[in-house]
Amino acid sequence: MPHITLPDGLPGIRGPMAFRPETAKPLNELVDVLLRGPHSLSPGERELIATFVSAQNDCMYCQTIHGAIAAHHLQGNEDLVVNVKRDAQHAAISDKLKALLVIAGKTAESGKSVTAADVERARQQGATDLEIHDTVLIAAVFCMCNRYVDGLATWAPDDPDFYRQRAALVAANGYAASTLPGATA
Amino acid sequence: MPHITLPDGLPGIRGPMAFRPETAKPLNELVDVLLRGPHSLSPGERELIATFVSAQNDCMYCQTIHGAIAAHHLQGNEDLVVNVKRDAQHAAISDKLKALLVIAGKTAESGKSVTAADVERARQQGATDLEIHDTVLIAAVFCMCNRYVDGLATWAPDDPDFYRQRAALVAANGYAASTLPGATA
Repeated sequence: MPHITLPDGLPGIRGPMAFRPETAKPLNELVDVLLRGPHSLSPGERELIATFVSAQNDCMYCQTIHGAIAAHHLQGNEDLVVNVKRDAQHAAISDKLKALLVIAGKTAESGKSVTAADVERARQQGATDLEIHDTVLIAAVFCMCNRYVDGLATWAPDDPDFYRQRAALVAANGYAASTLPGATA
Repeated sequence: MPHITLPDGLPGIRGPMAFRPETAKPLNELVDVLLRGPHSLSPGERELIATFVSAQNDCMYCQTIHGAIAAHHLQGNEDLVVNVKRDAQHAAISDKLKALLVIAGKTAESGKSVTAADVERARQQGATDLEIHDTVLIAAVFCMCNRYVDGLATWAPDDPDFYRQRAALVAANGYAASTLPGATA
């Protein structure tokens, strides 16, 4: 049961977002820019970074919904999402994304864990300053979202189809639009 | 030295914010709403929560600038800020804020660390659902900011006067206004 009284029927972060729309607005704008804005990393790759960090932080709602959105962007490849969560360094992703996921995982431990060698490895695989910046910020943003979701003890559906349907909606319309009052799923 | 090339002369989070204004905008809006919006917790109390979490996460820039802003709001009481960072449960703050700081500290460890008993203790001291929600979100937001600042290896000035002057500017104008291109200090 959530630690505070939240609107009924909204799982994960959507309960507290409906409770506090003043903070939900900039939160959704931030995630839309980071995960869906114009970028050299695809939306699927950026959702994989969000999923990887959320799995490392053991946040069930965030890793499942962002994993479903990643899979949606990646031609429905749910096995790839599972493999990235389980052992990213041996998953079928680019060497650049592998290097960026090391930076993301260390950012989630503590920003201080990221080393110059980690960054140099990413650069050698072609990562730009913007890609390194956004990897650190995506990891940091999901350290926030994971704690927001779990710190209030929100609930998460068990049915994978719930997440698949919601993923299609978010992939089509974005985070802000999918979280407006009255938005379904 | 920062891990990526950032604009010169801007310490802490301000370097990456100037590098990526598209994400800086919603970040500043979020912090302005949470720390400066209309609220039953004073701006000084909310800045103390931000400072406490940033100290727990060992982020020098964030704990120093938000500590300076907290002190500015609290009639310049820098000793109180030091005491809250060192031993909040024996500092000269309200019992409600002490209970909220327990929730904030546990949120920073992991959202799952927050217990129903922690929340009940805060309620017994008069905390509302909104205050509990915002405490969790402030803690989560600073887990993000701390990782953003340290994950990119930004620099932080040593001179306490730098932070005092910046604190006065932020206290007067807010985060978004104080971070606009061309803003000084």
